[in-house]
Amino acid sequence: MSSFDLIIENGMVVTASDRFIASIGIRDGKIVQIGDKLEGADRVIDARGRYVMPGGIDSHVHISQPQGPGIEMADDFESGTLSALFGGNTTVLPFCLQERGQPLRETLKAYHDLAEGKCYTDVSFHLIINDPTDAVLGQDLPALIEDGYSSLKVFMTYEDLRLSDGEILKTLDVARKSGATVMIHCENEDAIRFLIDKHELEGNVAPRAHASTRSVAVEREATHRAISLAEIAEVPIVIVHVSNGEARDEITRARQRGLKITGETCPQYLTLTADDLEGMDWEGAKFVCSPPPRDEKEQEECWIGIENGTFDLFSSDHCPFRYNDERGKLNPKGKTNFRHIPNGIPGVEMRMPILFSKGVLTGRVEPERFVALTATNHAKTYGLYPQKGTIAIGSDADIAIWDPEVSRTVRHADLHDASDYTPYEGMEINGWPTTVVLGGKVVIDEGKLTGEKGQGQYRKAAARKVS
Amino acid sequence: MSSFDLIIENGMVVTASDRFIASIGIRDGKIVQIGDKLEGADRVIDARGRYVMPGGIDSHVHISQPQGPGIEMADDFESGTLSALFGGNTTVLPFCLQERGQPLRETLKAYHDLAEGKCYTDVSFHLIINDPTDAVLGQDLPALIEDGYSSLKVFMTYEDLRLSDGEILKTLDVARKSGATVMIHCENEDAIRFLIDKHELEGNVAPRAHASTRSVAVEREATHRAISLAEIAEVPIVIVHVSNGEARDEITRARQRGLKITGETCPQYLTLTADDLEGMDWEGAKFVCSPPPRDEKEQEECWIGIENGTFDLFSSDHCPFRYNDERGKLNPKGKTNFRHIPNGIPGVEMRMPILFSKGVLTGRVEPERFVALTATNHAKTYGLYPQKGTIAIGSDADIAIWDPEVSRTVRHADLHDASDYTPYEGMEINGWPTTVVLGGKVVIDEGKLTGEKGQGQYRKAAARKVS
Amino acid sequence: MSSFDLIIENGMVVTASDRFIASIGIRDGKIVQIGDKLEGADRVIDARGRYVMPGGIDSHVHISQPQGPGIEMADDFESGTLSALFGGNTTVLPFCLQERGQPLRETLKAYHDLAEGKCYTDVSFHLIINDPTDAVLGQDLPALIEDGYSSLKVFMTYEDLRLSDGEILKTLDVARKSGATVMIHCENEDAIRFLIDKHELEGNVAPRAHASTRSVAVEREATHRAISLAEIAEVPIVIVHVSNGEARDEITRARQRGLKITGETCPQYLTLTADDLEGMDWEGAKFVCSPPPRDEKEQEECWIGIENGTFDLFSSDHCPFRYNDERGKLNPKGKTNFRHIPNGIPGVEMRMPILFSKGVLTGRVEPERFVALTATNHAKTYGLYPQKGTIAIGSDADIAIWDPEVSRTVRHADLHDASDYTPYEGMEINGWPTTVVLGGKVVIDEGKLTGEKGQGQYRKAAARKVS
Amino acid sequence: MSSFDLIIENGMVVTASDRFIASIGIRDGKIVQIGDKLEGADRVIDARGRYVMPGGIDSHVHISQPQGPGIEMADDFESGTLSALFGGNTTVLPFCLQERGQPLRETLKAYHDLAEGKCYTDVSFHLIINDPTDAVLGQDLPALIEDGYSSLKVFMTYEDLRLSDGEILKTLDVARKSGATVMIHCENEDAIRFLIDKHELEGNVAPRAHASTRSVAVEREATHRAISLAEIAEVPIVIVHVSNGEARDEITRARQRGLKITGETCPQYLTLTADDLEGMDWEGAKFVCSPPPRDEKEQEECWIGIENGTFDLFSSDHCPFRYNDERGKLNPKGKTNFRHIPNGIPGVEMRMPILFSKGVLTGRVEPERFVALTATNHAKTYGLYPQKGTIAIGSDADIAIWDPEVSRTVRHADLHDASDYTPYEGMEINGWPTTVVLGGKVVIDEGKLTGEKGQGQYRKAAARKVS
Repeated sequence: MSSFDLIIENGMVVTASDRFIASIGIRDGKIVQIGDKLEGADRVIDARGRYVMPGGIDSHVHISQPQGPGIEMADDFESGTLSALFGGNTTVLPFCLQERGQPLRETLKAYHDLAEGKCYTDVSFHLIINDPTDAVLGQDLPALIEDGYSSLKVFMTYEDLRLSDGEILKTLDVARKSGATVMIHCENEDAIRFLIDKHELEGNVAPRAHASTRSVAVEREATHRAISLAEIAEVPIVIVHVSNGEARDEITRARQRGLKITGETCPQYLTLTADDLEGMDWEGAKFVCSPPPRDEKEQEECWIGIENGTFDLFSSDHCPFRYNDERGKLNPKGKTNFRHIPNGIPGVEMRMPILFSKGVLTGRVEPERFVALTATNHAKTYGLYPQKGTIAIGSDADIAIWDPEVSRTVRHADLHDASDYTPYEGMEINGWPTTVVLGGKVVIDEGKLTGEKGQGQYRKAAARKVS
Repeated sequence: MSSFDLIIENGMVVTASDRFIASIGIRDGKIVQIGDKLEGADRVIDARGRYVMPGGIDSHVHISQPQGPGIEMADDFESGTLSALFGGNTTVLPFCLQERGQPLRETLKAYHDLAEGKCYTDVSFHLIINDPTDAVLGQDLPALIEDGYSSLKVFMTYEDLRLSDGEILKTLDVARKSGATVMIHCENEDAIRFLIDKHELEGNVAPRAHASTRSVAVEREATHRAISLAEIAEVPIVIVHVSNGEARDEITRARQRGLKITGETCPQYLTLTADDLEGMDWEGAKFVCSPPPRDEKEQEECWIGIENGTFDLFSSDHCPFRYNDERGKLNPKGKTNFRHIPNGIPGVEMRMPILFSKGVLTGRVEPERFVALTATNHAKTYGLYPQKGTIAIGSDADIAIWDPEVSRTVRHADLHDASDYTPYEGMEINGWPTTVVLGGKVVIDEGKLTGEKGQGQYRKAAARKVS
Repeated sequence: MSSFDLIIENGMVVTASDRFIASIGIRDGKIVQIGDKLEGADRVIDARGRYVMPGGIDSHVHISQPQGPGIEMADDFESGTLSALFGGNTTVLPFCLQERGQPLRETLKAYHDLAEGKCYTDVSFHLIINDPTDAVLGQDLPALIEDGYSSLKVFMTYEDLRLSDGEILKTLDVARKSGATVMIHCENEDAIRFLIDKHELEGNVAPRAHASTRSVAVEREATHRAISLAEIAEVPIVIVHVSNGEARDEITRARQRGLKITGETCPQYLTLTADDLEGMDWEGAKFVCSPPPRDEKEQEECWIGIENGTFDLFSSDHCPFRYNDERGKLNPKGKTNFRHIPNGIPGVEMRMPILFSKGVLTGRVEPERFVALTATNHAKTYGLYPQKGTIAIGSDADIAIWDPEVSRTVRHADLHDASDYTPYEGMEINGWPTTVVLGGKVVIDEGKLTGEKGQGQYRKAAARKVS
Repeated sequence: MSSFDLIIENGMVVTASDRFIASIGIRDGKIVQIGDKLEGADRVIDARGRYVMPGGIDSHVHISQPQGPGIEMADDFESGTLSALFGGNTTVLPFCLQERGQPLRETLKAYHDLAEGKCYTDVSFHLIINDPTDAVLGQDLPALIEDGYSSLKVFMTYEDLRLSDGEILKTLDVARKSGATVMIHCENEDAIRFLIDKHELEGNVAPRAHASTRSVAVEREATHRAISLAEIAEVPIVIVHVSNGEARDEITRARQRGLKITGETCPQYLTLTADDLEGMDWEGAKFVCSPPPRDEKEQEECWIGIENGTFDLFSSDHCPFRYNDERGKLNPKGKTNFRHIPNGIPGVEMRMPILFSKGVLTGRVEPERFVALTATNHAKTYGLYPQKGTIAIGSDADIAIWDPEVSRTVRHADLHDASDYTPYEGMEINGWPTTVVLGGKVVIDEGKLTGEKGQGQYRKAAARKVS
């Protein structure tokens, strides 16, 4: 009888703080032993020369989210989690978007139904609070938080999603009492609307205008406001997808005052620029996301934020639409005015390879910090730790084995999402997670899918302890 | 035949940049000559040993403003301007508050009617934009700005006054095109409401709670937001009544980015603290104003802002209510919950004596800077310069003669407003404007009123030139 | 035959990123296995209910350092490392102070001789560069860095230690080329001298003057200068013993520009104040260290720096003198003028208990962050990782087992250094490292010393890789 | 008999705070009357359509300063003040450089001798403290300050001029007690030396290296240090010739803490860049000055500093050398290595025309602010006010009449200094001070010199009042 179901031996094991050569023994889906030498397994993977890292957790992913009339998100739970898996992820956290007037339990049921039996990775859910009535805040939400839906997202932009400052404060107050974690999308909707009106008046409606109407000031303002609301409500928050140095500095200023603010950035802010939206024939639409990419100076500011610890989360903000599609980027209205182009770009599969290639292998980002940014901090921030996000005794055996010797040129044809393009087409990438283990099972084996649809489980997320 | 109607001789003439002993010759209400020796006047005032300064301009004064059911402002144009005059002012700028749905011309007519024949000082009007409909912004306002109503005020607080960010942006856009100047009251209404609800829930309803529910963070947030909106609309603004160092620093940060932001502070932020609101028997209600006074550290930060040029305007925010009055501070609801206490304190008569005594005579504030802060900058900011705000050839002969040797203990009994208390009761003051000249006429003569009701004129305010 | 020499089972194992219940298997002085269940050892320690953490590394310790005529440091390597061990440390990094004119190899030999056969903990050495001649910088130092003396300290204060900016730059340049790590003591000596002269002139010579003559501005200035020199020399540095928010903010500002600056703080800056120096009968001398403790506001700023990641190192700056001693604090001159009181306080034994009690058990500091601040980051910063500083396969079995249930009142009588007082006398402490393992040997067993003098080894420190 | 010696009528009179059309009556060299209409003068100048401004005061001018062996400054007091006069200046403040070991009285006598009978403008002297012995600081300096030498300059750079921090502190302490004003040249000499050595080692010795070896960090460091020393010595200072935004921000940060720091910038930092030093055939040497010009971003930061009040002084830092000259820029050693090129550029004649043209006539700088920046603030800062620096009753009749309609292309052939080039060659300039009045005498009349050598007087400078 084997002691272990699986041994991964001789690899460079990396956690958010440590790096050492060791063997990992897995049994019943869990990591049960880490040692210099392990023996007795049904299967042994030799990871010599490779990094053995916690499977990635992408805590900012949009899947199967309704988009309003005529628009459709490209990925469902099947294609979205498959793409995630091939990018080295073992858990993703999509959003459940409450429709106005909809009870939260109904929202959740709908997303559970969509995910059921479809997932290639484990999933846990964030709730987008879109209708914070007294009933929602007073009864439904506290119960759900206790049930494992402990992270909430609120929007300061999008006409049909934005909450008022008062609604945000009430939501933050629930979070304070219940230990939920609140993510805030920081852009000032009124300011965007003002700038859009101005641009339209000037006939300035091509995709590039998307970036000008969502300027750095628009994002910095909302970031400072969100932080101030958290300060007033006395609760930590997460500022998602920070795109530039001015918004980043608001986080730093807040932390110098002693506030607990977590910052997130994304690959698009390290690698794309607003000029990418200039494209002829509306090719620029492929890069329309919010906040928009900025310029090279701001890319550098985001790198600095990654290096100096202002950003603790690196997520994809995967939000995929098809480009050549009547229900995607080039929907009938999308072709006539930038503001009808659906906001969002695919990225769940490229998130970690981009950071590994441009960060770890260039020496800007230590492998340990890579693990923190892509897995551990997500698990800790969103209540999945220690089950997820690390290589430790008792944790789920969710592991990605990275081969630093692989070199690839990014082609959408090689990716697994259901969009029809990638904004990173043609990028040269070094390093790839060639083998992925989920719950102790080898689900990608040297680049080949060996797992199957439905292997991913739903995971409850615990709330922070409230003192 | 005399060359001059009036000569003020041998005084220390002070402008916003200069100080020199000279004689001033006045004819037909104007300053026509300044020289080492002038002769030939109907009357000669010997100002030896005294400062001859431009009459004060208080650009932040509330008079006869409707307050909603059951509440009444203490001063009308008669008592308000009389009090101003005794405090060394020759011009005040009250607000005309647009009622929702009311055409602006009607608003203005109502205030003109209230002021007509009543004023002891000259007056010019700010418009409070409370209902920025397309018609108001597109037609009425541009016309009025050209007609001499060139300064607008918008509120970010008070349920019945606050504008949304979108409304503020549209108002700023009108200002950008027309050269109007926009004043912004920066406090986040939603945050205040949230904190009030919290305090009420805890039974914390005494006057001191007024200060806690309008915290520094509440003001700093709105200040940063107002500045960001101005940055997005590309137009200068005035941040009124800054009460603390954090809000002050937002102005400094903006100026370092090259934005044109003017800051204002008031005597209450230099001399009062939130602890003054603690008073027994609701005495604390006497100090209820918004933003509230803070603490000694923040007083010092405000002084620094005066010294280093962050604040260019020093105003009273005179907003008088009676204390022992069914329609004032202790109205039937006012006595039960701090949020029913009308917001505002009287101060138009004490504004300049406080700064002169605590600033000029202590050496913290140069006399020239005193003139800039209390007169010249107001005239320049609000389109009354060079007619008002300085001692220069061609300017109106509006002059206050300050005697630095006078010492007084502040008693409300000695003041001239129609409130029944002063928040500065008992304060020791050195220096007083013992003689005041308005349009060449001696209207206060060695402390005695020699002018008469109705002597004050309405003055149009010119818009900034738009490039 | 046992598989392991020692098993520590069922404890809460903590690394700088993770926390999990597990058993640790140790063989030949190394950690070789971590698992849910291990068996077969000569000895098994049951750590249920206790934290199993990496042994502390105190990278800022002064032992047996010559102090000039008439003064003597209290601890030699025997008492100093014994005290360290009882405080949960398994490695300390004392300084080897180069005398002016002395070849570095001689300096090192002298300290090796002092340490030889005396140490209770492992040790590694920092070199204090006091005479950076061309020969020292060009030949001796690069060779020594390669030999395992990879961290250098330079002083901006103390007449007989301070380097000029030019000497610091040349030293930094060597560090850039060789991968050495430079620690900088940031206080402006000229400014201190100026303030001392001023105080002496005023007869202000009691211990309290020590704090006034080393003001926050004195430290902030030198901190900004040190950072600028590092920026110019293009090399990372460590700012040691930061005592206040202004100096802390210089580090943050630098990091926002992308510089690699590591910050250190110490227990004295979290718990003592300048008022402690006020003591009667020169009792204040017991708290004389540089920089001096500040006030409660600055204590809070230091806590914030610990929480938000500005400080990555928490050290003792152990620098012990006896109080009632002709060669210590109250030496003949020490009693007459604060500037003759030797600078420094004992703290190596209390460093971790203070942070554990005031930080971990109050919830301000996560156990993982405690490990990072007290062990892992020291090992990584100073080239001892992965041999030291963590609980990982292949690392030295240096472990402290912390019992959170212990409560103690600090008494110097219970401590093990050779001073005659502790500045923390009377402090209530919760939690203590009751069992300590060094290189796989149980050297403190439930509070009793079981190890012996000389058990500690010298460890080489590797330089950073230079690109 | 005429009442006045001279009347300047109908011009736009500008002071540092006011602008009005008036006539100015001058008698016995003083301004005695300002009025709407004046009559009875020996001569009347019609200034209709022109600005009547205080004559410029250039408080940062190097004339006849010894430069060490083989180098010679281009201007003596004759050519230097003639050039200043043609540029609209009526007073200049050159430096008297103390040689090491030289008693200050001797230094001063030497400069008085050089100036005697030569000057076209009034002059007052700054003392460069180069040898702050106890005798100098304790006796000579206090006496001289009382005698009218109330401004001192200290250098943090140049091997033969730099003072240590301790020497600066002692000098500041004298200033604190005596009311002297201290100017500080902020660049870190050790850092420059380090960078020069590095550049030379790499064979990088062309003029462009001058800019790289005096980087922004080098200036920012010294600026923060100078400010900190002033903070410690509790005395105001002037930071001269600030060239960039980072150094500027140090001033702003200090002012936010309540310190009194005055900032100065110069035309070269608004109009030149480091790229100008790239020139072929050592043409770049023409632009070598310290600090060096930076880039367009930093030019904009300096403009912002002018607009927002961080900079209160605008000076030339005139320091002229000939280019094609064995004793100037291309001295025998100057041609081989940038560090032998004398530091400094001519600019006294172009200072005000550049700011008038690029600032006033473009709308960036109000005429009042122009007067403050170029005249009034200099007089106030350096103890010449109210005799100099304004148009006020009793002040010297030093006046420049600016014609905004003049357009010129800058040609060195048209300038009056004794250098052989101008760094502004070819620049298009609008506006020029076509008539200049000194002490009531028309000395330049519609562009023609009507005054004579020796007309300029020496003026004592009063110390600040010490409380």
